[in-house]
Amino acid sequence: MNVRVGRRTRHYRTVAFDARKNAVLLIEQRLLPHEFQVVAVRDFRETARAIQEMIVRGAGAIGATAAYGLAQGARAFRGGDIRKFSCHVETVYQILKAARPTAIDPVNAMNELRRAMSAGQTVRQQQALAWAAAEQFADHDVKHCEAIGRHGAPLIRDGMRVLTHCNAGWLAFVDVGTATAPIYAAQAHGKKFHVFCDETRPRSQGATLTAWELAGQGIAHEIIADNAAGHLMQRGEIDLVIVGSDRTLGRTGEVTNKIGTYTKAVLAERHNIPFYVAIPLSTIDWELSSGSEIPIEERDQSEVLGAWGVAANPKSEIRNPKSVRRVYMRVANPTSRARNPGFDVTPPELISGIITPAGIFKPNELWRNRRELGYET
Amino acid sequence: MNVRVGRRTRHYRTVAFDARKNAVLLIEQRLLPHEFQVVAVRDFRETARAIQEMIVRGAGAIGATAAYGLAQGARAFRGGDIRKFSCHVETVYQILKAARPTAIDPVNAMNELRRAMSAGQTVRQQQALAWAAAEQFADHDVKHCEAIGRHGAPLIRDGMRVLTHCNAGWLAFVDVGTATAPIYAAQAHGKKFHVFCDETRPRSQGATLTAWELAGQGIAHEIIADNAAGHLMQRGEIDLVIVGSDRTLGRTGEVTNKIGTYTKAVLAERHNIPFYVAIPLSTIDWELSSGSEIPIEERDQSEVLGAWGVAANPKSEIRNPKSVRRVYMRVANPTSRARNPGFDVTPPELISGIITPAGIFKPNELWRNRRELGYET
Repeated sequence: MNVRVGRRTRHYRTVAFDARKNAVLLIEQRLLPHEFQVVAVRDFRETARAIQEMIVRGAGAIGATAAYGLAQGARAFRGGDIRKFSCHVETVYQILKAARPTAIDPVNAMNELRRAMSAGQTVRQQQALAWAAAEQFADHDVKHCEAIGRHGAPLIRDGMRVLTHCNAGWLAFVDVGTATAPIYAAQAHGKKFHVFCDETRPRSQGATLTAWELAGQGIAHEIIADNAAGHLMQRGEIDLVIVGSDRTLGRTGEVTNKIGTYTKAVLAERHNIPFYVAIPLSTIDWELSSGSEIPIEERDQSEVLGAWGVAANPKSEIRNPKSVRRVYMRVANPTSRARNPGFDVTPPELISGIITPAGIFKPNELWRNRRELGYET
Repeated sequence: MNVRVGRRTRHYRTVAFDARKNAVLLIEQRLLPHEFQVVAVRDFRETARAIQEMIVRGAGAIGATAAYGLAQGARAFRGGDIRKFSCHVETVYQILKAARPTAIDPVNAMNELRRAMSAGQTVRQQQALAWAAAEQFADHDVKHCEAIGRHGAPLIRDGMRVLTHCNAGWLAFVDVGTATAPIYAAQAHGKKFHVFCDETRPRSQGATLTAWELAGQGIAHEIIADNAAGHLMQRGEIDLVIVGSDRTLGRTGEVTNKIGTYTKAVLAERHNIPFYVAIPLSTIDWELSSGSEIPIEERDQSEVLGAWGVAANPKSEIRNPKSVRRVYMRVANPTSRARNPGFDVTPPELISGIITPAGIFKPNELWRNRRELGYET
């Protein structure tokens, strides 16, 4: 999507590939929102490290990074010995896989590449196929997000105030994003609306990443404390909620997402505000049969006890981010400890609909439509 | 209540008076929770400045500070001319009143003092009466909070997990506090329980002040992100909610309190968790007949866009607060703006009971019991 750097606005993907330099191009997400930088990673080992060190994060984005990383590694091979080449590709695969061992997207992406490569007879052919398949993987990710946008855009009408939580935006995918896809599509249709970004403590992805995305697109928005949404709903200032999901149970329609999502769903129900979840098909879990089976990760308490930011004068606005350095600050009482559950589970009765690349479904309709939604026995 | 400084634990009031030095003793609240300091303010003009600059905050605490400030000013008068003395006291009164022009507590407190002083014939007598009345005002504040604790303590049973929001603790009063009063009383009865402190963004009073208070008392507690309470309730980890109130409507039972309180009440109702509000009688508003008439202050957006804290290593714990300096940090995207409503209104149907110094009442019983609750026609 668009990024404003100084006075210029340019289109970027979160992950891209420079074939001439055999480099993976990544937005350095750890510097956002205070600094925008694209890094050109020229070696597959460095690409693995970029995944590991969270230069890039988000399901779709790390899948595409691993795909480009495998193509990059394959293309770095010199010579024509196909057996040595296969052995080399296996090494590249394992190194990229180890970068984020619990994530499934890099593995799925790389398996897709290997299937495509197997049609080639020579090293040259397989190298070309790897590159083509990586580009195709990235393009598919974008197309799926665009399809979510197409299906979700009609939910946003002129003058609406839309609440979103955390970041399920283009920075988490190759482009467009999921929860943000209907927002960007509605904007493309010329609709005027306002977005409230939940800050999303403790990691503040709403205040940092989502707000940064919306500012770049020129979408009217305001950041609110997580505490404020209930009040705004009560005063009739929110018309629609759209969030993303880390894992949606295909059998029950339960939605796991960033901590605080459940609270917003409960509030939306009380105020009769539609609550939608936008998801890529890859995040549907067809196995589990109860949300209570989903393990909820307890994250490091330092996240709750403090915050990351840049030193500033509270009264001034920072518009020149060149010289800023992000630091950690302890906010809380130094002798207290914290609980930090990272996710929560929203039950299907609080969800108006699930926006997928294949259309919008009621949570309890997912299982009935499982073939269409990519379920494989 | 108790404060641990190094290895020593000592009892402090938020506001006290050193008659020998004619000094008002205040806990410097702007340094908390990172540094504990008591300042001795030796001149009534300085006492006014301490109120103005928020060295001391909270309804009961600034009332007592103004009372001591008036006594301090009266006692600083040299000579026996009663007319000059009265004129001087009027000046002291106006200077202290101007320190926080919208607050009602300092005015009420000082009026009480002047009534008491009028019984004296000489300057000396009036000076002595002023001091005595200031001490009485402070003692009454403590007694009222203790009465809230007596009525509220039975709500807390052994093994309970109690959620609280923001800080309605002893730092906001002369001692004991309101929402914290049942907690301290239950502890005094030897009960074992656990307190979850909502961080309370954007100003984080839960993570800073309430957590600091509980740590000083040795009460088991954990700080949570405001987003986490819904999840904990869903998993059965919260048994009771107690909050304070800035303004409670005596005619309707609606409760105005720190932003986020309404959200917690909605969540508590969904999970059948008792939700109590602890209030001093001075915060009951007998005039307004609808919560929608309460003006909700929009506070500075810098609060939402950033945070105050001390530079720290996220992995280490700060236990020696001697050298720390609180600074402001911008967290959010620098080109985004924020909405920052400071309070919200919780309707009576979500409130299990209102804990007052005169007992616990259902929200719709306040008006019927208005005489007992200090209503004056």
